[in-house]
Amino acid sequence: MKKLEICLSPALYPYHKLEDSIVVVIDIFRATTTFCVALASGAKSIVPFASAEETYSYKGKEGYTIAGERNGLKLNGFDFSNSPFDFWKNPNIKGKNVAFTTTNGTQAIDLVKNDAMIVIGSFLNEKVLLDWLSKQGKNVVLLCSGWKNTINYEDTLFAASLAKKMIQTEKWQCKSDVFTMLELLYKEAQNDLLGYIYEKSARVKKRASELDLDKEFRFCLQRDILQNIPIFEDGHLTNYEK
Amino acid sequence: MKKLEICLSPALYPYHKLEDSIVVVIDIFRATTTFCVALASGAKSIVPFASAEETYSYKGKEGYTIAGERNGLKLNGFDFSNSPFDFWKNPNIKGKNVAFTTTNGTQAIDLVKNDAMIVIGSFLNEKVLLDWLSKQGKNVVLLCSGWKNTINYEDTLFAASLAKKMIQTEKWQCKSDVFTMLELLYKEAQNDLLGYIYEKSARVKKRASELDLDKEFRFCLQRDILQNIPIFEDGHLTNYEK
Repeated sequence: MKKLEICLSPALYPYHKLEDSIVVVIDIFRATTTFCVALASGAKSIVPFASAEETYSYKGKEGYTIAGERNGLKLNGFDFSNSPFDFWKNPNIKGKNVAFTTTNGTQAIDLVKNDAMIVIGSFLNEKVLLDWLSKQGKNVVLLCSGWKNTINYEDTLFAASLAKKMIQTEKWQCKSDVFTMLELLYKEAQNDLLGYIYEKSARVKKRASELDLDKEFRFCLQRDILQNIPIFEDGHLTNYEK
Repeated sequence: MKKLEICLSPALYPYHKLEDSIVVVIDIFRATTTFCVALASGAKSIVPFASAEETYSYKGKEGYTIAGERNGLKLNGFDFSNSPFDFWKNPNIKGKNVAFTTTNGTQAIDLVKNDAMIVIGSFLNEKVLLDWLSKQGKNVVLLCSGWKNTINYEDTLFAASLAKKMIQTEKWQCKSDVFTMLELLYKEAQNDLLGYIYEKSARVKKRASELDLDKEFRFCLQRDILQNIPIFEDGHLTNYEK
């Protein structure tokens, strides 16, 4: 039986990291959802950066396009924001490397990249990710990107959903208190994720209305519409190839 | 309206700290429960230390007694462990200063002591603490000591219980996602806290049986049997005096 750890904030990662593990990075609204979408829509790779400056240095570079967001807004001078709609079936990203920086998700990748194999999770690719993880025989850490190191609903609920399915396979065990806390939360929320999040999270509701993100948030909560798994290797994310 | 933040691990404190605030330090099993008991039972003060060595240097010093625990066990050569039963109505601690070190609780105090006024919370003094907080007109951070920086049930449930009562006074607001997550958890658990924790937390159940702590855990979940509020000032905890 392998170990499963659930880490609700990047700041807690040092206390949850496991030897010889795969880390699933989670940033549902919207970075990791959008990474899945971009690679499913034909981008060649995603090169995640913690800093906007480093990302911007790829502006106009042959074969590259740049995407960036801070506090939910597209960065000035960038080609794309981190909206999944910027990438969904967009022919302009076909074959492109996307240099990408976001408020939370790319920071989480940066934190973990020297410790473990990284894969990208979202509701859009949950099933295919679960099947793939089941074949690896490794310890797994679910790493929620959160919001500037605080715990948020959307990442927590995806971690709950995936953790529950992982435990059901009987390939992993999770001894921490967090798993059973999340089980209860997920049970309440599972049938209407967005309704539940809007009802419970003043933060998400405010963000949806101020930035007109309702449609995007709905998109990000669709289950299993994609079949790809972004894997981080040699500094960039590409689709896992069998 | 003042702000309320709920911080589920000391490692998250930097992201929850508030200006001009009171921090309620919480370590239900057993440090903060025992601090309340020791001061209610006549100890003159508690001097919390993060390190065992520093605590031990008070051994035999006039007016002092020393208490220490690591991983649930009394430290060698110390006068007391962190069991509330070591202090409860114990005449030998009357008028004594207790130099005290524990795995989690005293570390949390150490982390916060230069930032904010610190008070000690437990189920035993929840009501009197709530009444006192209501009169202060300050921002409040509920700081769960957790278990070596991971999130645990017992501290989380106390934070949920106190936060809910604080919000009901309408003197505070809490905008973070954590509050509504905790509300649900508390609703499930409130009528049988220990039964719920045993059912859900493999960690607590194991600790109870391995270290024979069941009776102590029951003691720590009693509500409002004490009327004192330990306050940290000038390096030590004493009872708040009106």
